[in-house]
Amino acid sequence: MLIVKKFGGSSVADRECIFRVAERCIEDYKKGNDIVVVLSAMGDTTDELIEKAKNITPEPSRREMDMLLTTGEQISVSLMAMAMDSLGVPAISLNAFQIRMHCTSAYGNARLKRVEAERIRHELDSRKIVIVTGFQGVNKYEDYATLGRGGSDTTAVAIAAALHADACEIYTDVNGVYTADPRVVPNARKLDAISYDEMLELASLGARVLHNRSVEMAKKYGVQLVVRSSLNREEGTVVKEVVKLEKMLISGVASDKNTSRVSVIGVDDKPGVAFKIFNTLAKKGINVDIILQSVGREGTKDISFTIAQDDLNKTLKILEENKEALTIQNIGHEDSVAKISIVGAGMMSNPGVAAKMFESMFNANVNIKMISTSEVRITVLIDENDVDRAMRAVHDGFGLGD
Amino acid sequence: MLIVKKFGGSSVADRECIFRVAERCIEDYKKGNDIVVVLSAMGDTTDELIEKAKNITPEPSRREMDMLLTTGEQISVSLMAMAMDSLGVPAISLNAFQIRMHCTSAYGNARLKRVEAERIRHELDSRKIVIVTGFQGVNKYEDYATLGRGGSDTTAVAIAAALHADACEIYTDVNGVYTADPRVVPNARKLDAISYDEMLELASLGARVLHNRSVEMAKKYGVQLVVRSSLNREEGTVVKEVVKLEKMLISGVASDKNTSRVSVIGVDDKPGVAFKIFNTLAKKGINVDIILQSVGREGTKDISFTIAQDDLNKTLKILEENKEALTIQNIGHEDSVAKISIVGAGMMSNPGVAAKMFESMFNANVNIKMISTSEVRITVLIDENDVDRAMRAVHDGFGLGD
Repeated sequence: MLIVKKFGGSSVADRECIFRVAERCIEDYKKGNDIVVVLSAMGDTTDELIEKAKNITPEPSRREMDMLLTTGEQISVSLMAMAMDSLGVPAISLNAFQIRMHCTSAYGNARLKRVEAERIRHELDSRKIVIVTGFQGVNKYEDYATLGRGGSDTTAVAIAAALHADACEIYTDVNGVYTADPRVVPNARKLDAISYDEMLELASLGARVLHNRSVEMAKKYGVQLVVRSSLNREEGTVVKEVVKLEKMLISGVASDKNTSRVSVIGVDDKPGVAFKIFNTLAKKGINVDIILQSVGREGTKDISFTIAQDDLNKTLKILEENKEALTIQNIGHEDSVAKISIVGAGMMSNPGVAAKMFESMFNANVNIKMISTSEVRITVLIDENDVDRAMRAVHDGFGLGD
Repeated sequence: MLIVKKFGGSSVADRECIFRVAERCIEDYKKGNDIVVVLSAMGDTTDELIEKAKNITPEPSRREMDMLLTTGEQISVSLMAMAMDSLGVPAISLNAFQIRMHCTSAYGNARLKRVEAERIRHELDSRKIVIVTGFQGVNKYEDYATLGRGGSDTTAVAIAAALHADACEIYTDVNGVYTADPRVVPNARKLDAISYDEMLELASLGARVLHNRSVEMAKKYGVQLVVRSSLNREEGTVVKEVVKLEKMLISGVASDKNTSRVSVIGVDDKPGVAFKIFNTLAKKGINVDIILQSVGREGTKDISFTIAQDDLNKTLKILEENKEALTIQNIGHEDSVAKISIVGAGMMSNPGVAAKMFESMFNANVNIKMISTSEVRITVLIDENDVDRAMRAVHDGFGLGD
């Protein structure tokens, strides 16, 4: 078997962690498997490097920032190779230049394009454990570009796809994917399996178990993912195309507090107005999430939408500057809101799912501000203070607990 | 003009240092020059990285060690580019992969082979200051290999040669090359110019101003070097092919305390014995410096030679193990010895130089243990305790002071 294993920064934070990971990899290696390990930077290294840059200038160039940040992974992979070597197992570390990890040019937010597998294959053929820097690629200018936070997951999937690996294991500090955040919903249950589509909805909704792009890429290339704990030997959760094992309507409940609502009141009720508003925001790099439009008074309409909290001030400023051009009478906003979503491939063929969710929230006395749905997801916007109560109510309402 | 400037680790140790270097480079840039900057790792970074590795294993693989160490320079070049950027001057950092800095495969002690200048030229053409990682190359396996301590000097010379730079400035914490170490000889004088050959003898004799290989390479490609201070604007010392400006017999006096003497007594006085002894040592990686052979008693001879102090124990062990095969009767050694050398292109045509040196030492009551000479150098071995006194005596004897 060829197994790609990805470990995050907390899994390689110090000597003890590094050796724990090394031994775990060696165990599988000694069973005759080929092992590729993808690592993030150790512990707080990335934050420390960012600190160094900010000490030079408050707004460092993104290109140079990536040149700086990529050293973090190079340090962890070389130390890991030394650790494995010292345990008597041949190992070799490789960076993005050495494995030709091509990516798009966007510094700080690049997407992987392709990886040339020759070098990795060559080292595996000589029975070495290959340790690869996550989070980084080389763009068309022959410069380092990083993939954004959590990008090491995507690195692992890209390598697994290129090598046609038998498994791609993502190690985290939780046992797998849960029906809800166990810190909020104590009786949340670990899922044995989940489909790519459900995982995508969960990842983008703040479940934070897997990086979104990694799931997209796994789906595209049919890479079977396993999310499991680096702290114990439990089986974890398999992410794959079709999950028939579980007969449940929904797989899980997720929440996202990093949300603000903005309303533009009394805009002209004419074609093209919504387009103009969202095009203006998109050009400034604002990602709009849920959109809701309602009829206003006297030939006008009101549009509400949600954005990430960090983007609120920028968004309000842009709207204010373009108030006249966009025919906006008033701008409102609400900062302390949150999204709650239920995700499940089963809901497509079950019309009662939305009603059941709303009923659970009504029983818990939670007011719903906005609603948005996709094929495998229903999201509602509620007051931030209601989140935990709503999560537990919905989780219980669908009988997801143990 | 195209100017290559090299700054060592202490010149980029912190924010203040980085900005001082940045401003100095920008000054020359704004005069219309093209600037390439070669940097070492910041301050103690390299030592800290070595510490990290030793924390994993006492004997890390050299290949992984180089993978680790090269991050040090990548950090300093990216921070320098940010600093210049923040001062309003476009700058770009480049590592050994990006400039195709090819080197031999010896990890930890690689030699530069060639550098492809395209990328640097391209960035200079768009009027950027180009900041390059010193100390590192990429070998035929497509792995990082470091050049050994002080290798950044060689990086600077290699780039200056490839770009046909008009000047290659090596910045240090001293004002240039002196007739002797000013800490030992208070009236030592700074030289305006010195020839490659003299500089080579000085560098290899522990003057520690320039890395030896960098001078060899500068001589080979005719790169004119300037050694100058990063702390002030003094002119420094020019290192070039022929120095006619100074009419002195000798250019300077250097000492090297990192020396031990070993004697093998009573070996067979037959052809091939010396060869066998030094071949045995060479195969084990021992560098022998001065060799002196004298006639022993009854058909035997005695051979004395000097080595670096670090190699003493290993050398004694090798000789002991091969005592019979090498026909050695006794092995003697002396730890507390030092070399004193005078260097000067002028001594070739002046037969009295050696005599004058010995006279100076006699007057200072310094006993000479061994003598070795080259075309531009005379070296004597003396007791380590006599070094400072001997340095001053010789320096004064040749009238080198101010």
